[in-house]
Amino acid sequence: MIAMPEPDRAVLARRAEIVAALRTIVPGEGVIDRAAELSAFECDGLTAYRQPPMVAVLPGTTAQVVEVLRYCAMNGVKVVPRGAGTSLSGGALPLADGVLLGMGKFNRIREVDVANRCVVAEPGVTNLAITQAVEGLGLYYAPDPSSQIACTIGGNVAENSGGVHCLKYGLTTNNVIGVELATIEGELLRFGGKHFDASGYDLLGAIIGSEGMLGVVTEVTVRVLPKPPGARALLIGFASVEGAGACVAGVIGAGVIPGGMEIMDKLAVEAAEAFVHAGYPLDAAALMIVELDGCEAEVDALVAEVEAIALENGATSCRSSRSERERLLFWAGRKAAFPAVGRISPDYYCMDGTIPRREIGRVLRRIEAMEGEYGLRCANVFHAGDGNLHPLVLYDANKPGELDRAEAFGSAILRLCVDVGGVLTGEHGVGVEKRDLMDTMFTEIDLAQQQRLKCAFDAGGLLNPGKVFPQLCRCAELGRMHVSGGALPFPDLPRF
Amino acid sequence: MIAMPEPDRAVLARRAEIVAALRTIVPGEGVIDRAAELSAFECDGLTAYRQPPMVAVLPGTTAQVVEVLRYCAMNGVKVVPRGAGTSLSGGALPLADGVLLGMGKFNRIREVDVANRCVVAEPGVTNLAITQAVEGLGLYYAPDPSSQIACTIGGNVAENSGGVHCLKYGLTTNNVIGVELATIEGELLRFGGKHFDASGYDLLGAIIGSEGMLGVVTEVTVRVLPKPPGARALLIGFASVEGAGACVAGVIGAGVIPGGMEIMDKLAVEAAEAFVHAGYPLDAAALMIVELDGCEAEVDALVAEVEAIALENGATSCRSSRSERERLLFWAGRKAAFPAVGRISPDYYCMDGTIPRREIGRVLRRIEAMEGEYGLRCANVFHAGDGNLHPLVLYDANKPGELDRAEAFGSAILRLCVDVGGVLTGEHGVGVEKRDLMDTMFTEIDLAQQQRLKCAFDAGGLLNPGKVFPQLCRCAELGRMHVSGGALPFPDLPRF
Repeated sequence: MIAMPEPDRAVLARRAEIVAALRTIVPGEGVIDRAAELSAFECDGLTAYRQPPMVAVLPGTTAQVVEVLRYCAMNGVKVVPRGAGTSLSGGALPLADGVLLGMGKFNRIREVDVANRCVVAEPGVTNLAITQAVEGLGLYYAPDPSSQIACTIGGNVAENSGGVHCLKYGLTTNNVIGVELATIEGELLRFGGKHFDASGYDLLGAIIGSEGMLGVVTEVTVRVLPKPPGARALLIGFASVEGAGACVAGVIGAGVIPGGMEIMDKLAVEAAEAFVHAGYPLDAAALMIVELDGCEAEVDALVAEVEAIALENGATSCRSSRSERERLLFWAGRKAAFPAVGRISPDYYCMDGTIPRREIGRVLRRIEAMEGEYGLRCANVFHAGDGNLHPLVLYDANKPGELDRAEAFGSAILRLCVDVGGVLTGEHGVGVEKRDLMDTMFTEIDLAQQQRLKCAFDAGGLLNPGKVFPQLCRCAELGRMHVSGGALPFPDLPRF
Repeated sequence: MIAMPEPDRAVLARRAEIVAALRTIVPGEGVIDRAAELSAFECDGLTAYRQPPMVAVLPGTTAQVVEVLRYCAMNGVKVVPRGAGTSLSGGALPLADGVLLGMGKFNRIREVDVANRCVVAEPGVTNLAITQAVEGLGLYYAPDPSSQIACTIGGNVAENSGGVHCLKYGLTTNNVIGVELATIEGELLRFGGKHFDASGYDLLGAIIGSEGMLGVVTEVTVRVLPKPPGARALLIGFASVEGAGACVAGVIGAGVIPGGMEIMDKLAVEAAEAFVHAGYPLDAAALMIVELDGCEAEVDALVAEVEAIALENGATSCRSSRSERERLLFWAGRKAAFPAVGRISPDYYCMDGTIPRREIGRVLRRIEAMEGEYGLRCANVFHAGDGNLHPLVLYDANKPGELDRAEAFGSAILRLCVDVGGVLTGEHGVGVEKRDLMDTMFTEIDLAQQQRLKCAFDAGGLLNPGKVFPQLCRCAELGRMHVSGGALPFPDLPRF
């Protein structure tokens, strides 16, 4: 522990002034400034980083959001927007000298428009609640992050969240067709709507995945899809991870687009099977779970095609689900893989990188070699169909040096992803976790262009500062020096 | 004809200097400055506007594109990029004092990557050539604008082109996964790649549909899809356009996503039938063409479901294609609808607006009423499934006042689209055609935000100036006065 310096008087006075101003905008319980209550917001899903905000505000109307932002813009106050706080990259990590803008009260479905096959939701509605609002009509919202019970659609927009079904049905960016966004200056912009295309620049794509740095989403319009009439899952065992990787490329290359196509390596299979008893083959070096959906005849044909491709790639076993119950059981093991790994290791560090599909085998083999180099085990569970890896680096935070080694191992994996033509993230975002790796995939020219876009929305840099951009780069741009501050998060940012 | 003033000596000297500089970058036949040859570039598919460029340059390498742009940036020379020049909104209309940057020499497919199910193409490759490169593998490129034999993938990116199959498979923006872009300053940026998602802002969406105003695309990576195993087309007649409109909303609301779902009104059906003899029902007030694709059992089930919805909505006839030959014949009438209308009217003006699906009936009825108000007929042929209207206003350019009335009619239709919650364009872009209507759907705040994005890429406003943004707005921003110059295009821009 490092001793925290006492905040000085000027800082306290400024804080009191900000709290008072926010209370005039959001009356009642909507402004939180007691330390005990603020600790509820001190981290998101990336629990290694913790920092309570200066103050939290929970507006209940768009007009209040606009007023809060306008106040912050005029007074140079930093703002960190937050949905349910399930981000795995620290995208919602608060700032000691910033306002935490919680959107939890925006939890109403505004409209189910069947004729236009879309739903208009407030940003604090959970991902699952959207599906629940339309499932009686045979429809559903496709992107399904594992956190879908808790995570909000506004957060999904901020991080461009994915899920098991994104291979066939796309990520958040492919399923959101409109957003309303409040800028830091308190202006409301609309992008897209109930239609597929709009005039002018398509900024919807830039907003989705912008990690709260361009504005605060106040309404989201999503398209909803018909539930497929049927679905079957296959468990396919392989004697090597390369075989499984080659099979994925083979399936996609043949033009088959499964509803989901996942790979788990031996360590992940063992952990999941011990936890869920899904019937996974324990002798396989890698397990592929493939779901084929459509009408029955279509599913029959696709299953036969995938089985043939699997055999060509050296599959050692293949089992098809014989009932809906069994199909769900096959998935239950996969969906519980993270907690299952948590049972065999005191701690784990979940990475998120994306690679071209044909590199899967090579990258998995390289990660295996790195286990020796870093002296840590790594379980691999991932969305193989879209090349989105989720290596889980196992470590014990109580053993000196293990966290550092786990982080170094994670960074090395992400650098490897970029080296083979992939990217730093698939669905978790950059946040604070990967900001300093951005220069591995972007040139200075690329980063400067992204900064210019950021400036076009938020010239003062008040929205979610410290996220996404490498700090050295950002500081250079702002003419400031980078100061390494040791163990505290955000050494580069002034502390309260 | 208005007499053109003689260009003055300073202008001629500057032009000579620019031509000479371009010749040092692109040697040989790559720089065109003779009036007779420049006239080949004087218009695109929006033939009502014509303006030869000051000079045309046809680079053959990315390095040359970069050098040309860098030269133009340093010397304040305007640049209009061009693919095949098939734009219907004047997006590639040259400037009298600008360089026309033709990308026609970039016509190679660089890579067919089956394992990643994508194709890497140069921007001058035609849309159809991409499908031809992969059809032997059972794959195809989905967006299929009617101009697909001629239009280039670079132009498709610039205009976010659509087509009959975009209802199910998406527009260009849903099928392009990576671009390389040269900025006006001669920097090369990469957005996306062979993977689904990338770190940092997703600027791919902003680039696609940016109408040549943010940069020049030098490489495009598209995903290719498996050809559906089978497809059947239905011809469904309705006694009213409202019935057809309601049927479209009913099909989509039921969760069925047809491969294509088009409506033609009586006038369009008569013109197309007389031209192609596709077997269209001549007694119907509106014809809906629906294509269902998938495996045979799936198609059977979908056909039955769509027929039932059609009957509920008052269909008067329904015919299913009995062979692949007949299916193609059903489409041939639709695809030839524009030239077919050209046979029954000396001239026609093709509009492109998009509306929420459930407004289709109401909007078509209103357009019918406008025919009386403007004294002109209007044939409606459109992508009903995605609410993308293509009203064809019939007129005779040789009759005084008819062109003006046709343009006024067209504007009124687009305003109507915006009024019911739609947008100014579905797939043709804004270009010069609709720039002055942008304020009907965007507020000053919206337009200022778009300008800020434009400035983040091209602060000097050298890339395709005069397109997309309303000129009053743009001029106000640049501190200039708007001068209405009469019959010549671009009265607001200095003439050579």
